[in-house]
Amino acid sequence: MQILQYVGDRAIALPPEALADALARQEGTLWVDMTGPTAEDQRVLAEVFKFHPLAIEDTLKQAQRPKLEEYEGYFFMTLHAVQATAQRGTSVSLQEIDLFCAPRYIVTVHPHPVPALEEARARLGRAAGGQRVHADYVLYAIVDSAVDTYFPIIDRLDASLDRLEDHLFRRPTPRALDQLFHIKRSLLYLRRVSTPLRDIFNVLTHHDSELVRPQTLVYYRDVYDHLLRITDLVDTHRDLLTGAMEIYLTVISNRLNEVVKVLTVVTALLGAGAVITGFYGMNFERTFPPFAWRGGALAAVLLILATWTAAFMVFRRLRWL
Amino acid sequence: MQILQYVGDRAIALPPEALADALARQEGTLWVDMTGPTAEDQRVLAEVFKFHPLAIEDTLKQAQRPKLEEYEGYFFMTLHAVQATAQRGTSVSLQEIDLFCAPRYIVTVHPHPVPALEEARARLGRAAGGQRVHADYVLYAIVDSAVDTYFPIIDRLDASLDRLEDHLFRRPTPRALDQLFHIKRSLLYLRRVSTPLRDIFNVLTHHDSELVRPQTLVYYRDVYDHLLRITDLVDTHRDLLTGAMEIYLTVISNRLNEVVKVLTVVTALLGAGAVITGFYGMNFERTFPPFAWRGGALAAVLLILATWTAAFMVFRRLRWL
Amino acid sequence: MQILQYVGDRAIALPPEALADALARQEGTLWVDMTGPTAEDQRVLAEVFKFHPLAIEDTLKQAQRPKLEEYEGYFFMTLHAVQATAQRGTSVSLQEIDLFCAPRYIVTVHPHPVPALEEARARLGRAAGGQRVHADYVLYAIVDSAVDTYFPIIDRLDASLDRLEDHLFRRPTPRALDQLFHIKRSLLYLRRVSTPLRDIFNVLTHHDSELVRPQTLVYYRDVYDHLLRITDLVDTHRDLLTGAMEIYLTVISNRLNEVVKVLTVVTALLGAGAVITGFYGMNFERTFPPFAWRGGALAAVLLILATWTAAFMVFRRLRWL
Amino acid sequence: MQILQYVGDRAIALPPEALADALARQEGTLWVDMTGPTAEDQRVLAEVFKFHPLAIEDTLKQAQRPKLEEYEGYFFMTLHAVQATAQRGTSVSLQEIDLFCAPRYIVTVHPHPVPALEEARARLGRAAGGQRVHADYVLYAIVDSAVDTYFPIIDRLDASLDRLEDHLFRRPTPRALDQLFHIKRSLLYLRRVSTPLRDIFNVLTHHDSELVRPQTLVYYRDVYDHLLRITDLVDTHRDLLTGAMEIYLTVISNRLNEVVKVLTVVTALLGAGAVITGFYGMNFERTFPPFAWRGGALAAVLLILATWTAAFMVFRRLRWL
Amino acid sequence: MQILQYVGDRAIALPPEALADALARQEGTLWVDMTGPTAEDQRVLAEVFKFHPLAIEDTLKQAQRPKLEEYEGYFFMTLHAVQATAQRGTSVSLQEIDLFCAPRYIVTVHPHPVPALEEARARLGRAAGGQRVHADYVLYAIVDSAVDTYFPIIDRLDASLDRLEDHLFRRPTPRALDQLFHIKRSLLYLRRVSTPLRDIFNVLTHHDSELVRPQTLVYYRDVYDHLLRITDLVDTHRDLLTGAMEIYLTVISNRLNEVVKVLTVVTALLGAGAVITGFYGMNFERTFPPFAWRGGALAAVLLILATWTAAFMVFRRLRWL
Repeated sequence: MQILQYVGDRAIALPPEALADALARQEGTLWVDMTGPTAEDQRVLAEVFKFHPLAIEDTLKQAQRPKLEEYEGYFFMTLHAVQATAQRGTSVSLQEIDLFCAPRYIVTVHPHPVPALEEARARLGRAAGGQRVHADYVLYAIVDSAVDTYFPIIDRLDASLDRLEDHLFRRPTPRALDQLFHIKRSLLYLRRVSTPLRDIFNVLTHHDSELVRPQTLVYYRDVYDHLLRITDLVDTHRDLLTGAMEIYLTVISNRLNEVVKVLTVVTALLGAGAVITGFYGMNFERTFPPFAWRGGALAAVLLILATWTAAFMVFRRLRWL
Repeated sequence: MQILQYVGDRAIALPPEALADALARQEGTLWVDMTGPTAEDQRVLAEVFKFHPLAIEDTLKQAQRPKLEEYEGYFFMTLHAVQATAQRGTSVSLQEIDLFCAPRYIVTVHPHPVPALEEARARLGRAAGGQRVHADYVLYAIVDSAVDTYFPIIDRLDASLDRLEDHLFRRPTPRALDQLFHIKRSLLYLRRVSTPLRDIFNVLTHHDSELVRPQTLVYYRDVYDHLLRITDLVDTHRDLLTGAMEIYLTVISNRLNEVVKVLTVVTALLGAGAVITGFYGMNFERTFPPFAWRGGALAAVLLILATWTAAFMVFRRLRWL
Repeated sequence: MQILQYVGDRAIALPPEALADALARQEGTLWVDMTGPTAEDQRVLAEVFKFHPLAIEDTLKQAQRPKLEEYEGYFFMTLHAVQATAQRGTSVSLQEIDLFCAPRYIVTVHPHPVPALEEARARLGRAAGGQRVHADYVLYAIVDSAVDTYFPIIDRLDASLDRLEDHLFRRPTPRALDQLFHIKRSLLYLRRVSTPLRDIFNVLTHHDSELVRPQTLVYYRDVYDHLLRITDLVDTHRDLLTGAMEIYLTVISNRLNEVVKVLTVVTALLGAGAVITGFYGMNFERTFPPFAWRGGALAAVLLILATWTAAFMVFRRLRWL
Repeated sequence: MQILQYVGDRAIALPPEALADALARQEGTLWVDMTGPTAEDQRVLAEVFKFHPLAIEDTLKQAQRPKLEEYEGYFFMTLHAVQATAQRGTSVSLQEIDLFCAPRYIVTVHPHPVPALEEARARLGRAAGGQRVHADYVLYAIVDSAVDTYFPIIDRLDASLDRLEDHLFRRPTPRALDQLFHIKRSLLYLRRVSTPLRDIFNVLTHHDSELVRPQTLVYYRDVYDHLLRITDLVDTHRDLLTGAMEIYLTVISNRLNEVVKVLTVVTALLGAGAVITGFYGMNFERTFPPFAWRGGALAAVLLILATWTAAFMVFRRLRWL
Repeated sequence: MQILQYVGDRAIALPPEALADALARQEGTLWVDMTGPTAEDQRVLAEVFKFHPLAIEDTLKQAQRPKLEEYEGYFFMTLHAVQATAQRGTSVSLQEIDLFCAPRYIVTVHPHPVPALEEARARLGRAAGGQRVHADYVLYAIVDSAVDTYFPIIDRLDASLDRLEDHLFRRPTPRALDQLFHIKRSLLYLRRVSTPLRDIFNVLTHHDSELVRPQTLVYYRDVYDHLLRITDLVDTHRDLLTGAMEIYLTVISNRLNEVVKVLTVVTALLGAGAVITGFYGMNFERTFPPFAWRGGALAAVLLILATWTAAFMVFRRLRWL
């Protein structure tokens, strides 16, 4: 548990024991960040903050959907930061952040350390004291840092998709299909966490809310605008992905046509050769001039070559070669 | 018919004869659970509870859609628990629960025993007496137990789909197609029963309702949140399923290309061999040096091998082998 | 023209001449059922009932969309009963019913006799006199009888689809494709007549309406619930149909792979045989030991068999056989 | 410019010079119909009627979307009649009609003569004088005549689609594909002009409008009902078209399977013949009994025929023939 | 930075230094156009205009979504002009324009020169002085010029698509697929920038807005109508594109059928020739009349030709040739 208190122009790190006191004093804004939460953290949530058991239960389970719930005296919010997983450039992992927000404090709970929260802390460190003493600005800094983690991921997926498209036109491989499918999965995950968050911010910025003061609203509108762009980009990329999939299937069908044309040409040429050599292999050698002719073998070879040249020209004309 | 009365801190099992009395006394909450319903149960519904004939008719027919209907003095609700069927891991069976709910009693009717109701009874056994003496909390316990049966099913479908995807990239079999189709059917069933229920809870939690007291609303919001996640997950899995289907088709097309390439290579190599041996089988043996040459057969074999090696290298370069 | 008057507890069949009188007396409910409508019927609609020319015109044309229009003093409604056509189990025919409804009378017009109306008459015969003296209850009986004709059709389509799916996995025939397409058409027709009707009943049951008295509303809600289930089932079946179509295409692609593999195996085995026999047919009989060897033909046969066995094992390992 | 004035029971054709006067007198309804519009027409629109430059500009450009715009003192409406083009039975051409409508006059502008307007003029000639002296009834006659041009086109597309479906099951030709695509394009055009018009009439009939008097509303509701049916039919046909496209692709895949099966049978039969004749062509004639046998050739022929019969029966059993 | 002041009937170009003064005097309308924005421009935005830091930040980043945000005393709008890129006729580039709009001034910011703004300047030069002294008319001129850049692009895509469709029916090449995909991408980009802009104008024209005076509203409605047409056209073209893609795939499948039929014919004809020549090559020359017959070779040739003619007629009848 890491406790920061923004009072006046100062940012003070408090020890856990000082929490109850600081809460009672109602001064500036307290940001309590819990990684885990540990058993002690859970006790604090239940006994010091007196949060509702259903909300505390939600901080213990992952795979929640972004949501904003109003309880008496505080709000509970779930949102996600995203991170590219190291192994595959096109896979993403979601980092759930559970948030309690009241006029004087913010409590963030997450199972593992989240870089976006480090970023938010750094940003708040640079912010004016007059802004960060209000909980809604601290909340903005946290949410905006989380939302900003979406853009590099989308850029990365966009670059992968671009590369794959070029690749698909030249050579459609099963590996490319595998990558397309990974991008699809990632886009589905991004959409699942960005769309509900966008709807939450739509409500926050278009209706009066106890959570946000009028003078901070412009910052929330900015986050909403970012979320609109994210969901827009995700949808556009889904469309492009579908297009890439269609290219894949079409290019494969095209290739099959090419291969079968080659097969037909091979069959025609070698078959013609077999018929001609078979003809001269018939047992009529004593009955017909050509079989007696000295230059017969040469004639046969020439006949085969002439047939091949003719067939070649026919296939050329058909544009099969 | 199994009757439980939650009064004060006690949970009392009542005999059927005591029902009319207990209803008249209006004390605590009565939960009447009917399996069937038997002819006697139907008589009780009609004569003791005086429910509307249309609602009683609905408890006799299955394959209802989740719904919430207000009658004078009580509500009628239909919802479903789900269960994986034993034979196929990816098939689900729906268990319809019909509910009558009034301020002092809950009546549940279902054709077969439903494990989710057992679970609800156990939960209520552990609940505080102050909560379970209100019908809306008892209703919450029942509905939440039913909704919680969806998550293990979805996890199971998710695992099956994951396994299938891996399988499809390696070897697309008709059996996998069959399984994909079963998962699709199960997702359709889940969606058909979860989406209307979600809409019902959306109304219950966002509008004033006679059914739910303000202090219980937070529990209903939790159920609504679960239902949102369920419908979300079902939709995501439908998208993934479509993707898996596309992989299936594409991998099959890919394989066909490979097979036809092999066919072409086989045709080319064996056809070339046939032409060469045919050539040396022509009846010009007395007219041309090569046919007289002692090492002719060896030369023919070497010629065939040389042709095969050349063809092999050409196909390698084309990446057909 | 068939006229029934429900007064008090009696149901009286009136002759056409008595219609104007009965209308003027305003007693109980009149149900005037017209098949055609004949020229005389049209005269009655225009002169006795004084309906609007546009509404009368609509009773003459078929292929209308379900609708509910309010005119001064009466409502005009169009809805459809459905019937399976005898020739093809999966085709449906729509039976349009045009309805005029006022507080004291119902006029139904349809080009051919409609079994659903017989059913409604029978139901009304069994209904309590207190109910059927109100036009809204008579209207309910008619509409509910019509809507109940949808369920057996949907069950039939469901059974056909189930049978087809099983069939498709085993053997995809063009006849199955033809049947899939017929089911698709039938579902489209059902959706076209059930969706607007559902919307009409949504309005009727959720808004105050002059057409329905509060005490009859619960019956209309029941019809609305049936229509919700019908449109739900139709949509689910459309999804299943799409799935069946995908199976069809995929199974065909799979089969093609199998056939081409057989072709490749046949080509390889017979081609190898041709090369080997061709080799021993070369004209080097006097120059090389094997051609002189007595057991040469046997050796050739053995060589061919050995080659075939080896090829067979290779294809087995590739799982092509 | 053709001017008709409906006053009392008379319909008077006015010369262009009399227009300003007639407008000033405010008697009955004036219908000014302009084909072009010519430079003189444009002058009249701008100077006599004093329409807004933006609206006049819209009458000069085609390819507008149906719309209804309110200006001070008049409405501007754009709608389309449709016509089948002569060359291809499944192509449609759109005829844009721009309309100005005020309480005392209607001005219609269109680049070429529109048969639907002739039809409207004939209908108004037959209408009662009391109706046609009001601009909203004249507007109704014009719009209804235009909307009625959609039904024969849709019937025609329906018949084409029906014919094509039958055709596709028997023989899928590229020409059929071409026709499917033409029908698709036509349906897209119809939807583009009917959907916005339907929305306009939805607003006109469900909200109070200065444009329509209450007693004329029933006619506008009839047009709205026609438009609902048109958009409904267009959507149903789009679904059927997609189905036809799927049939096309599936039938082609099916055919390919058949062709490849024939190829395999041909390869197997002729290949077997080549191996058998090759076997008897081997140079072991002096070393082995069969080659010396007198009836050898006959035996070879019988062996080939036996092999073919066996292969034929195998393929029959596989249902490849 | 280019500053234009529209006062009375004059249009005055102001030097940057005069800006603060002109702003303070509040006379006519100021249009400040910034290309970049340069560091000096940013200073002016922040210190002279005192815009909100979030809005200024948005002018520095590209790839924004069209939006309209209200700040205290001014509006911030983002929209896009489009331009065909020179290299590929079917690719488009978006030119983002960021706009600040207040009752007395308009500030436009864009990274590169935008031809649409030149066009707007020319239009305003021709406009009546009474119109251009109001900021909402200047804004209209700018937005309308930007929106008008969409139509030539869509016409170009339409022409490309038409050409491609014709092309696809005759010869489906991978290059055509590549072009289809480029058109798809362009349509996606156009939709992404036109749809949100349409929604903004829907709000502007249907609700009271401080931005637009009632007398200018008609011009904004015209822009909204253009945007409706653009999004309509984009959607229609997306449907046509999908159709073209389906043609592509179907024509390829059709071609494959043709190629495989040719392969089968070739295999049948050459295989038959091989069997016949093989038959006469069997070593029974001394045992059976035909092998001794003088005209044997001629007979063999005739037999081959007869077989080929028969096969040819069979394939003709099957319509394979």
